[in-house]
Amino acid sequence: MKTILKSKTKKVEISTDGPFTIIGEKINPTGRKKLAAALQEGNLDYVRDLAKKQIEAGADVLDVNVGMAGTDDVDYLPAIVKMLAEEFDIPLCLDSPNPKALAAALPLVQGRALVNSVNGEEKSLAAVLPIVKEYGTAVIGLTIGEGGISNDPQKRLAAAGKIIERAAQIGIPLEDIIIDPLVMTVGADSSAGLVTLTTIELVRKEFGVNINLGASNVSFGLPERDVINQAFLALAISAGATCAITDPIKYTLAIRAIDLLRGRDSYGMRYLKYYRAHAQEKTA
Amino acid sequence: MKTILKSKTKKVEISTDGPFTIIGEKINPTGRKKLAAALQEGNLDYVRDLAKKQIEAGADVLDVNVGMAGTDDVDYLPAIVKMLAEEFDIPLCLDSPNPKALAAALPLVQGRALVNSVNGEEKSLAAVLPIVKEYGTAVIGLTIGEGGISNDPQKRLAAAGKIIERAAQIGIPLEDIIIDPLVMTVGADSSAGLVTLTTIELVRKEFGVNINLGASNVSFGLPERDVINQAFLALAISAGATCAITDPIKYTLAIRAIDLLRGRDSYGMRYLKYYRAHAQEKTA
Repeated sequence: MKTILKSKTKKVEISTDGPFTIIGEKINPTGRKKLAAALQEGNLDYVRDLAKKQIEAGADVLDVNVGMAGTDDVDYLPAIVKMLAEEFDIPLCLDSPNPKALAAALPLVQGRALVNSVNGEEKSLAAVLPIVKEYGTAVIGLTIGEGGISNDPQKRLAAAGKIIERAAQIGIPLEDIIIDPLVMTVGADSSAGLVTLTTIELVRKEFGVNINLGASNVSFGLPERDVINQAFLALAISAGATCAITDPIKYTLAIRAIDLLRGRDSYGMRYLKYYRAHAQEKTA
Repeated sequence: MKTILKSKTKKVEISTDGPFTIIGEKINPTGRKKLAAALQEGNLDYVRDLAKKQIEAGADVLDVNVGMAGTDDVDYLPAIVKMLAEEFDIPLCLDSPNPKALAAALPLVQGRALVNSVNGEEKSLAAVLPIVKEYGTAVIGLTIGEGGISNDPQKRLAAAGKIIERAAQIGIPLEDIIIDPLVMTVGADSSAGLVTLTTIELVRKEFGVNINLGASNVSFGLPERDVINQAFLALAISAGATCAITDPIKYTLAIRAIDLLRGRDSYGMRYLKYYRAHAQEKTA
């Protein structure tokens, strides 16, 4: 199964058979005061810098989230998307639950974007899927049903099924839907990791679709978060995850190692190339 | 499935349902010149120090390998095993392909040891299994057949089946056999990781036994070995590995994280306890 995203001249395939796809998470003001301030001042240089650094670090796609408390992201998303589409040749993931912001920003994308996200609630399905269809994008479907987030993997699977079915009804094909099994922190509930891993396996076996993770949530509130996040990436990829919204600066080398260990990097070329390009940073 | 090992007063359960079991790899002179020299001088202090450090770092079992080029390990293994059994309360894994060394050292074990290893060749089966039976130990079975090490997971599975069958014929039960799917370096053959992971899944599904890895081989010859080894541990555990001969000083925290993420650490108690006990070492 392949989900195709495009920028001005480049094509990215998120694939169940290929190497793992990295969606850079850092253009997101949550917990980044400097970015929030820059966005509110209309200063795009900080976003430019985050885009550049993530691309250099191995991001295949850039997530763009400009949601800030007390603001409406329709006021920020179009300008940021326009700048990124003009200045960088990498597909974008428009991260907003707000249909107005999506509809205002999608015409400014050059290529084929990923919309993040729809979920299994009627309100979200009715608002977001028509926009996805109109602009011919791919979409991330969060496994949330009418009852909210369930701890039962079967209920998360059912939410995925509902999204896939409703998308099919308006002509959005299976390959354009990437299911997100939801990742909660094991710091609050020590069964949370297992619930996500089980959901990934169920979704993979039932639908065979691409599967995304917001991988860094899992360690929230715990010490040595990088150790946990890195372990979780490997476990989730083993279960069937094919892309993640994550930090390419911290985790690309580990992801290259995982691809190599799973036989998805002939002669270790990608691992070694990445290591050589970034080795001096570690010793510097 | 549970494999029980014992020391003077402690019991260790290697289990397909529980947390992962760490077999400390460091008492092994291969690549450790200081240890080789100490062994040849009959100086046991260096071994004592390696035992102590690995136990403090989280080892559940200690592997004891005294094989050195140009020597016969029957001359070293009994004295080392005697000292470790007397001075430390942790089960031992006697790592020798030499039936004479095993037969000389096993009477000195206090408790129930693990023998590492037998393989699927007639010569090894005939020499090692009777010793395992006589001393009532558990045994690691390497998935090597008459033709040597195969790159075909089905052939490795067949070697595992042969070991299990021949053991059963002399009354060694399934739970006392831990299958080792063999780990070759991905630096020499980029499909080597996938071959091992596939073998783990086949062995788990076919026999449901405990599965061991010599986990550190996989990264031999490559840069950033720790990143690769840590990723491989997570992938292998996800596939069905239940114990590994590995470096507890480097990898116990990651293994605790993997247990937590798989729902095998209620409230994250073991992860947090380990972190708190070792946090100062990282900052010191």
